[in-house]
Amino acid sequence: MAAQPVSVLITGANRGLGLEMVKQMLEAPHPVRKLFACCRNPDGPRAEALRTLAKKHPNIISIIQLDATDLCSIKQSAQQVDSLVGTGGLNLLINNAGFLAKGTLQETSPEDMKITFDTNVIGPMNIIKEFLPHLRAAAKASKMSGMSSSKAAVIGISALLGSMESVKESYSFLPAISYRISKAGLNMLTLCAAEELKMDEILVSALHPGWVRTDMGGEGGDIDAQESVQGMLSVISSLTEKQNGAFLDYKGKTIPW
Amino acid sequence: MAAQPVSVLITGANRGLGLEMVKQMLEAPHPVRKLFACCRNPDGPRAEALRTLAKKHPNIISIIQLDATDLCSIKQSAQQVDSLVGTGGLNLLINNAGFLAKGTLQETSPEDMKITFDTNVIGPMNIIKEFLPHLRAAAKASKMSGMSSSKAAVIGISALLGSMESVKESYSFLPAISYRISKAGLNMLTLCAAEELKMDEILVSALHPGWVRTDMGGEGGDIDAQESVQGMLSVISSLTEKQNGAFLDYKGKTIPW
Repeated sequence: MAAQPVSVLITGANRGLGLEMVKQMLEAPHPVRKLFACCRNPDGPRAEALRTLAKKHPNIISIIQLDATDLCSIKQSAQQVDSLVGTGGLNLLINNAGFLAKGTLQETSPEDMKITFDTNVIGPMNIIKEFLPHLRAAAKASKMSGMSSSKAAVIGISALLGSMESVKESYSFLPAISYRISKAGLNMLTLCAAEELKMDEILVSALHPGWVRTDMGGEGGDIDAQESVQGMLSVISSLTEKQNGAFLDYKGKTIPW
Repeated sequence: MAAQPVSVLITGANRGLGLEMVKQMLEAPHPVRKLFACCRNPDGPRAEALRTLAKKHPNIISIIQLDATDLCSIKQSAQQVDSLVGTGGLNLLINNAGFLAKGTLQETSPEDMKITFDTNVIGPMNIIKEFLPHLRAAAKASKMSGMSSSKAAVIGISALLGSMESVKESYSFLPAISYRISKAGLNMLTLCAAEELKMDEILVSALHPGWVRTDMGGEGGDIDAQESVQGMLSVISSLTEKQNGAFLDYKGKTIPW
């Protein structure tokens, strides 16, 4: 088993895959020591399960307000983490928060495009930029050589629907044009960030969680959140510089662009 | 030589590749009959060369105001074309207008991302949607079987920088992260539109013009606009349903996603 990250930040941590990640990271044989669980509305009814978890693990979980579409909120969350994270920095940043619209070209409005792109691409970009000092601090503080998620890494939760190769076989079944465009954009962001940040020994990869039975994925999904997250956390813990800029599914298989 | 389109619309037609397309389409052995040359500011100093051409060919060229970032302007341009295009519809729509920002991840602001995405992705999407009735009219009016640019087609002027496969070898030389993300997004739009519109027999493809010595490409480009456009027009005229959803360079070579 590879070394585990000491400090982790997850966006969209109040439900679905994000909440399941928080749960499994707490239950791991070597649980994380600091878990920044971010969500848009920490006091709202949709964050109740996360608040319950945080009460059980007050020394590990910090719930942080973060709206991926609001740069001011991202900057404030980075300041808040700064006061909590210590000199070890932030080992692992998981850009999990996302927005799905399912429409065809003809059904999709400019507003659908904007909110999807804002949430799924500009948000992750701003979050990487604002948390970069914490990631760099972690890379510098680490005594490990090479790259890994226990040293310093950014994971973007992407989707198979963002694969260009997937369009022909799946478009008629699920058009989701704004979502596909945003996830292709997130994949390009991942590749570019991987190139730019490799000099800092910060690893950047994109993951497809599978088609999961969550609020977003719907009831028809192939797997449940538990299986998806078990797979993704295993993949994340196994990443090395060979997977810098990679697009992998929750089983670790490379997905074609 | 394949049949030529009767009516063509080009965005960003006042300079660079767009202006060169207008010139070459007028000089072709079988010139187009209706050429809707769109630009943001038809009366401005940067449209002088286009106005001069339009005065020489008043029966062919109509200069149309179109700002790809302004849905209202796109809708008005579609109405204007409606009154000019006749029952034959619009055979060929070339989404050429584009915006380039060159910054790295760390240099790129949310505003850079928004304006680039607005111009290079949402604009082309809105233009396809608003001109869809004219493209459908052309497909229906055509007596040709299959798909072609002389029947009904949408061409997106993309870029090699939008290829995921190109990032590792070119990022340090030209980061342009917002541009790369937008062109990956345009490629995904192209693929999705190709799937959605094939039932209407409207062909949709993306082209890489080469690295061209224009205002956008700079003086260090490999080829001039004349060579790029000669190549692209030849590729466009040769497209069939086999290239629906393809990403090709100006020589007709497939570019990996």
